[in-house]
Amino acid sequence: MSREKNNTKPIAVFDSGVGGLTVAAAIKRLLPNESIIYLGDLLHLPYGSKSTEAIIEFTDIAVDFLVNQDIKLLTIACNTSTSVALDFIRSKVEIPVVGVIRPGAEAAVRATQNNRIGVIGTKRTIESDAYKKEIEKVSAQTNRKIEVYQKATPLLVPLIEEGWKDHFVTELVLREYLNYFEDKKIDTLVLGCTHYPLIKNTIGSLMHDVKVVDSAETTSLKVKELLVKKKLLSEEEADYNYSIYLTDYTDTFGELAKLIIGNGKNEINDKINIISLEFSRGKSSYNLI
Amino acid sequence: MSREKNNTKPIAVFDSGVGGLTVAAAIKRLLPNESIIYLGDLLHLPYGSKSTEAIIEFTDIAVDFLVNQDIKLLTIACNTSTSVALDFIRSKVEIPVVGVIRPGAEAAVRATQNNRIGVIGTKRTIESDAYKKEIEKVSAQTNRKIEVYQKATPLLVPLIEEGWKDHFVTELVLREYLNYFEDKKIDTLVLGCTHYPLIKNTIGSLMHDVKVVDSAETTSLKVKELLVKKKLLSEEEADYNYSIYLTDYTDTFGELAKLIIGNGKNEINDKINIISLEFSRGKSSYNLI
Repeated sequence: MSREKNNTKPIAVFDSGVGGLTVAAAIKRLLPNESIIYLGDLLHLPYGSKSTEAIIEFTDIAVDFLVNQDIKLLTIACNTSTSVALDFIRSKVEIPVVGVIRPGAEAAVRATQNNRIGVIGTKRTIESDAYKKEIEKVSAQTNRKIEVYQKATPLLVPLIEEGWKDHFVTELVLREYLNYFEDKKIDTLVLGCTHYPLIKNTIGSLMHDVKVVDSAETTSLKVKELLVKKKLLSEEEADYNYSIYLTDYTDTFGELAKLIIGNGKNEINDKINIISLEFSRGKSSYNLI
Repeated sequence: MSREKNNTKPIAVFDSGVGGLTVAAAIKRLLPNESIIYLGDLLHLPYGSKSTEAIIEFTDIAVDFLVNQDIKLLTIACNTSTSVALDFIRSKVEIPVVGVIRPGAEAAVRATQNNRIGVIGTKRTIESDAYKKEIEKVSAQTNRKIEVYQKATPLLVPLIEEGWKDHFVTELVLREYLNYFEDKKIDTLVLGCTHYPLIKNTIGSLMHDVKVVDSAETTSLKVKELLVKKKLLSEEEADYNYSIYLTDYTDTFGELAKLIIGNGKNEINDKINIISLEFSRGKSSYNLI
């Protein structure tokens, strides 16, 4: 297969819901020649409230679907999925795979001057220690000792999805959550969830003199870096902007999708396709107490 | 089969998550001789953010599982599922089926004196107009004209699941939401979601002189009424308190389950079983704009 043919293949972006579109949109802003295939597993969202086993299986089946679409690069644009399933996916597929955690960790390590970094994310992302571990791995390469302070902020996604992006309650909830960092003296804060870029301004206004690392932006930079390195950048105009596949559809997706990618610059004339993927969970049992 | 044999069969309670346990616990308080089989479809929660087609399929498959457990009565303890799938389920199964909406509607019509009723619930429950239609149906039987005012309150479940049951932010969010009723002059408010009984006291303190109808309680009364009518009440001690089946497991379920049913009165020594149910969604497509 010729290199040119490979170069015009689409980039795949996978997320459990609509949040990964912030990553897709960041890639598209940086690399307008690229076509993007998006898969949102709306039937199972939010991943943050599911078990590790379930998340790995959902991701596995979704990735199979995307790889079958003949893509040149795969982006796991879901923090929960990246934190529990990235290594497994990398061991399975041959194309380059970009997660959202490593790029955010690298950007945070570059940004901090006092070696004190904060991270916010869903309960599952924070409990997995994925950012903490990745930041420690990155900083170890330069023999730096970095302190990482983490806070789970599970109400932010529901608030954003309620349309309360600029509501005073969202600011109050943020104050409650960010209060945790008050005595931690961090100079850098990682937004460890793809929904959070939508309230980046409010977060920035509450965290004076703190650099806010947006994982959507940093992930798009990593995608560009990899495509340049592998000589896979498209030099032709994109076949399409977004081709969107969903495992379920609700109006909330449509509304937020328009907010994130339908900013008037690009006309969104691509169809949303609802697909059927087979999932099942094995039998096991737990004691309640 | 003898009547006695039928009487000792379990009552099934179905919900997408943990909220239906408020209904199960209310049934158990009222009818301690009954054994309860609970099915929580945690793999797909929350139903409120899924499509109608997906919810009907989830409910259908879950009900098949429960009916195969040889139950004497089925309770759909999920408002979203009741509002979109109850008629379909009733047309399929031969045992009595109790939803959470009709009992709440009847209790509200009995309670109101000025014929003005408020309803709060998830976005999907409110958009379905299920309570409004049911209240109108019930009141039409006595030629009463009742005004129904509805407000979607989608942040309450995430707040409860965050453990912020008694947090000042939850009170602020409630004030924001309940403010809608300020000029509606309602004297009765229906809690149209099985999570809400857990914040019933706060709601009550904000709604002076308003009777709060708890659909968990009213549903348990309807279950008892039906069992009495069909002569299916168990007169022997229950084989077990709760037998719980889940399609996925996370610690949040365990913690909330203990809060709801593990109140020290009954020892919870029943196993939680994780089961595998096959779900799939048909192919279709939507235009984004």
